[in-house]
Amino acid sequence: MITSQAYHPESQKAYKLLVQNITSLSGGTIFNLGGHSIQVEKKDGIGGLIEEWFGFWAQKQNLNIFNPNSSQEFPDYFAGKLNDGYLEIKTFNHDASPAFDVANFDGYCRSLSENPFRLFADYLIFSYELDKSVLKIQKIWLKKIWEICSGTGLYPLKTQIKQGVIVNIRPGSFHSDRNQFPLFTNPRDFTNALYETEYQYNNKTNFKNDFEKKLQEHKILI
Amino acid sequence: MITSQAYHPESQKAYKLLVQNITSLSGGTIFNLGGHSIQVEKKDGIGGLIEEWFGFWAQKQNLNIFNPNSSQEFPDYFAGKLNDGYLEIKTFNHDASPAFDVANFDGYCRSLSENPFRLFADYLIFSYELDKSVLKIQKIWLKKIWEICSGTGLYPLKTQIKQGVIVNIRPGSFHSDRNQFPLFTNPRDFTNALYETEYQYNNKTNFKNDFEKKLQEHKILI
Repeated sequence: MITSQAYHPESQKAYKLLVQNITSLSGGTIFNLGGHSIQVEKKDGIGGLIEEWFGFWAQKQNLNIFNPNSSQEFPDYFAGKLNDGYLEIKTFNHDASPAFDVANFDGYCRSLSENPFRLFADYLIFSYELDKSVLKIQKIWLKKIWEICSGTGLYPLKTQIKQGVIVNIRPGSFHSDRNQFPLFTNPRDFTNALYETEYQYNNKTNFKNDFEKKLQEHKILI
Repeated sequence: MITSQAYHPESQKAYKLLVQNITSLSGGTIFNLGGHSIQVEKKDGIGGLIEEWFGFWAQKQNLNIFNPNSSQEFPDYFAGKLNDGYLEIKTFNHDASPAFDVANFDGYCRSLSENPFRLFADYLIFSYELDKSVLKIQKIWLKKIWEICSGTGLYPLKTQIKQGVIVNIRPGSFHSDRNQFPLFTNPRDFTNALYETEYQYNNKTNFKNDFEKKLQEHKILI
């Protein structure tokens, strides 16, 4: 089980290999239908493509990184021969602030209360530039969730809010030195902010209580 | 300006050409990064790729179908030499029910009250199958918004509801004969259902009143 606050060794291997070869990480997308091929210039699907590509690339490097059965659910990949690590792939446009969804807010509050090990997932993050149809990876990070999340003025945890509803957990400015709101520095500060946000938002602590129980049950210290 | 309840002639041309050649409409996506190419097997980005492909294809057919300046906003394409038609591209997995977002609910209520002509946009809809990495277009429809939308048990208009919040307008079963809730048959029934849903949902009729004023202002009969 994933009980470590450190990055999984297999995630680290992947990260180091990618960073060593970052200057070669350019390419693009060709879409063909009815004999008409286009070189894709829109950014919409790039995140999913890089995520899918990463699995093939890792296989070619003989890394122990594996696709889960379902592509829709957490995690994007398992790391380690025993599937003992979680690895999430995130991407964002290098010319803008990171605006990917770290996770659905409600879903994450719930899932952490069922599987507290999810807290220790590694996040492999790519920033890219798309110049017409030419894609270039600009920077790569390996992070834990508390290292990419921050507070805001409104709630203890930065989230995406639509029509008053908290939808997704959104990253803080982990890519920049200019942080209006500092990133968290440990998992406990992050989970406190997560569940305090849940409490302020809908006056419930159900998931928080379940989460704390699970921590005790599994003897996880954070 | 788009004042017609009929499909725009240029949309019809595109639709007929595509349907005539539907058996040839197969292909797929190749994504390359760092010299490693993959044949894409995930469905996530297909909608955006078909939409982008359609613009190139239409150009090659010398159709008067044009990209707007911004790719994020309505419409996906203009139809006609004078940009006098709106054309939206929608796609869905042929093995499932259509689950694309017709439009953001709030955004649509508002935009129709500012530009009532949006009501007459054409919808070109593709259903596809993805067998491993081989993409095949299965069926194509040309529709108006009232021909793809329906009621539900909950609200007069079928929508996607998340945590009690109406997020998007979702299509009814326009692809099938088994309709639990019938599709609308004219624009007025659709706009009545739209704004009645807005009223039941948040007790406001601001956008409805503005919409009706605009109809009178532009002498639009629906």
